[in-house]
Amino acid sequence: MKSATSFLLAARQCEIAELEELARTSELVGVIGRFVHALQRERGICNVFLGSHGRRFAAQRLRQVEECSQVEGEVRAQLEALETGSRCVRNGSRLFSRVAMVLHALDGLPALRARVARQALSARDATAAYVKLVTGLLGVVFEAADSATDPKVSRALVALFNFMQGKELAGQERALGAGVFAAGFIDASGQQQWRHLIESQETCFQVFADFADAEVLRAERASREPAVLAEVERLRRLGGSTRRELDPNLSQAWYDWATRRIDAMRAVEDVLARHLRELCEARIAQARSELRDQSAMLAALASDPAAGPGGSFGPHLERSILDLLQEQSRRLQQMGDELDAVRASLNERKVVERAKGLLMAHRQLSEDDAYKALRQMAMNQNRRIVDVAEAVLSLAEVLPGASD
Amino acid sequence: MKSATSFLLAARQCEIAELEELARTSELVGVIGRFVHALQRERGICNVFLGSHGRRFAAQRLRQVEECSQVEGEVRAQLEALETGSRCVRNGSRLFSRVAMVLHALDGLPALRARVARQALSARDATAAYVKLVTGLLGVVFEAADSATDPKVSRALVALFNFMQGKELAGQERALGAGVFAAGFIDASGQQQWRHLIESQETCFQVFADFADAEVLRAERASREPAVLAEVERLRRLGGSTRRELDPNLSQAWYDWATRRIDAMRAVEDVLARHLRELCEARIAQARSELRDQSAMLAALASDPAAGPGGSFGPHLERSILDLLQEQSRRLQQMGDELDAVRASLNERKVVERAKGLLMAHRQLSEDDAYKALRQMAMNQNRRIVDVAEAVLSLAEVLPGASD
Repeated sequence: MKSATSFLLAARQCEIAELEELARTSELVGVIGRFVHALQRERGICNVFLGSHGRRFAAQRLRQVEECSQVEGEVRAQLEALETGSRCVRNGSRLFSRVAMVLHALDGLPALRARVARQALSARDATAAYVKLVTGLLGVVFEAADSATDPKVSRALVALFNFMQGKELAGQERALGAGVFAAGFIDASGQQQWRHLIESQETCFQVFADFADAEVLRAERASREPAVLAEVERLRRLGGSTRRELDPNLSQAWYDWATRRIDAMRAVEDVLARHLRELCEARIAQARSELRDQSAMLAALASDPAAGPGGSFGPHLERSILDLLQEQSRRLQQMGDELDAVRASLNERKVVERAKGLLMAHRQLSEDDAYKALRQMAMNQNRRIVDVAEAVLSLAEVLPGASD
Repeated sequence: MKSATSFLLAARQCEIAELEELARTSELVGVIGRFVHALQRERGICNVFLGSHGRRFAAQRLRQVEECSQVEGEVRAQLEALETGSRCVRNGSRLFSRVAMVLHALDGLPALRARVARQALSARDATAAYVKLVTGLLGVVFEAADSATDPKVSRALVALFNFMQGKELAGQERALGAGVFAAGFIDASGQQQWRHLIESQETCFQVFADFADAEVLRAERASREPAVLAEVERLRRLGGSTRRELDPNLSQAWYDWATRRIDAMRAVEDVLARHLRELCEARIAQARSELRDQSAMLAALASDPAAGPGGSFGPHLERSILDLLQEQSRRLQQMGDELDAVRASLNERKVVERAKGLLMAHRQLSEDDAYKALRQMAMNQNRRIVDVAEAVLSLAEVLPGASD
C-alpha cells in the first residue's frame, strides 16, 4: 500500500519531470529565437529588394534564405523531438495547436519567397506575411512561458518572451522607417504608428528588465552601443517630423543603424537562452539532490532503532516526517504564489487576445484588422493597447448579445 | 517529418489525455466526499460520547468507526490507482503533496480513536483532530479543481468543492451548537463564532449555486426539507442568544435536526459526483468523436484529386486546413478564458492561505493559530476572512522585512 512518504517522494519526482519538460521546451524556445532573427533579417532584405525593384540585395536575399532554411531545419528537428504521443506535455493542447499554426505558416514560406523573387507582391504585403510568421513563433514562446511550473524558470521565460517581442517591434520599426525615408515624407498616421512602435518596444523592455536576472541585465547594458543608439534617436527625430522633406539617402543609413541595434539584441537573446538552459539544469540538479536527501532521510528513519516493528515510526520520528511534509507543502505553496505573480505579467497579452477575439466575432473582422482597430483606438486615445482592450471587454459586458 | 496536421491531431489527443486524467481525479473526489461524510459522523458521535463521559453513543461509535474504515479502504484503493511513477499527472507535485499529508494524518487515526475510546482527550481536542483530517481531504479536492483543464469540468469541481466545504462548516456548526446547548449557555465569543460559521456556509453555498448546473441545483432545492430548516433556524436563534439559560435537553434535538440537514446534503453530493462523472465521460466521448472527424476530414483532403503530388494540398484545401487550425485555436482560447474565470473563484482561498503563511512566518504562529487570528480579525471587524487576508497581505508589502 502506498504510504505518505511514497507520495512525498512522488511529488518530488513529478516536479523533476516537469522541470525536465521545461528544459526541453526552453531548448525549443532558444532555437526559435535564432529562427526569428533570421526571418527578421530576411524580411528586412526583402523590403529593400522589393522597394528597389529588385536592383538591390538580390544576392543577400538568396544567402539569407539559405541561412534561414538551415535554422528552420533545426526548429523542425526540435519540434520532432517534442514527443507528441506517449508522454503528456503540460499545456500540450495549446502548445501543439500553436505549433500546428507555425508549421502551416512555414509550409507557405517557399511560395512567399517565390513571389518575392518574381516581385509579385508589394514590400508592405511581404512584410505583413513575415510579421505573421514571427507572431506565430512568438506565440509558441508565450505558451511555453505560460505553462512553466517553476517560478524561476517562468521569470526567465517571461523576460525572454518580452525581449523577443521588443526586438520584433524594433524590426517592424526598422521596416517602417526604411519605407518612410525611401518615400521622402511621412504623414500623420505614419508618425503615430512610429511613435506607437517605439512606446510598445519600451513597454516590452521594461517587463524584460523587471523579470531578467542580474547577469542578463548586465549583458543587456553592455550590448548597448551609445553611438548606435544616438544615431537611431537622431534618425527617429528626423524621420518622425512631417515639417520637411526627407533625404531618401537616409533610408540606407537608417536601415544600417537600426540593424546594428537589432543585431546587438540578438547577442542578448543568446545570453538569455543560455541563462534559461543553465537555470533548468541547476533546478533539475537541485531537485534530484533534494530527492536523494529525502529518500536517504526516510530510509534512515525507517531503520532507526527507535522505529517500531515492521518499520513503523515512533512518535519522535513521526515528528520528523511531519516536518518534511510541512516543509514540502510550504515550499510548493510559496512556489505557486510566486508563479501566480509572474504569470500575471502575461495576462496583459491575454486581455488583448480576448478583445481581439471579441472584435472578430462581433464586427466580423479578420484577426489582423481586429488588432489594427485596437491599435488605432489606442493611438487615437493616446492609451496603451491593453487599456483599450480592457475597455472593449468591459463595454462588451454591458452591450446586448456581446457576451456569448 | 511532423506536419501541421499531425500537431493539430496531437493537440486534440493531449486534450483527451487531460480529460481522462480529470475523470480519474473526479472518481477520487467522489470517494473522498463519502469518506468526509463518514468522518463527520464519527466526529459528531465522538463529541456526544466524550461529552457524556462515555455513557452515550458507545455502540454507535464502534459501528461508525467500522463504516469509516471501509470507506477509507476505498479512498486508499483510489490513491493506489493514481499512478505516481510513469505517467505524468497534471499539477502532480501539489496533488501528491496533499495526498501525502492526508495519508500521514490517516496513519494517526487508529491512535486518535484509541484515545477517544479511553476518554483520554476532550471533546474539543477530538473535534479539532477530525477537523484537521477533513481539511486535508478537502485540500485534495481543491487541488483537483485548481488543476482541471476543461472549463465545464472545472465548474463542476468548483461547485462540488464549495458544497463540500459548506457541508463541513455545517458539521462544525453542529458540534459547536451541541456543546453550547449541553453547557446551557453561550458567551459573546461563542456567539460570534456561531454567526461566523453560518455566514461562511452561506458564502460557500452561494459559490456552489453560481457554478453548479441546473440539474444539480434542482436536486439541491429538492433536498431541502422546510421543516428541518425551520427547526435548525429556531434552535440557532435560541442557542445564539446570551439572554437566557439554555435547556441542556435541546443539545440532542439540535444534534438530530442538524444531522438531518447534513445528511440531506450528502444526497446532493452524490448527485454532484455523478454529474461530474457523466460530464467527464461526455467530454471524453465528444473529444474522441471530434478527433475522428478531424482525422477523417484530413484523410479526405489528402486523397482529394485536387491535392498535389505526394499528398500536398492545393490552395483550396490549404484553406480548409487553415480553417481547421483557426477553429481549434479559437476554441482553445475560449476554453482558456472560461477556465481563468472559473479559477478566479478559487483565488479567495489562495489569498487566505497566503495570509496564513505570512502570519506563520512572521509571528511564529502555528497554522491553526494563524487561521484563528485571521478569523478573529474578521469577526472583530465584521468583515469576510478573505478581505482581512487581503489587508494582511497588502500591509505586509509596506512593512519592512515582511516580503521575503
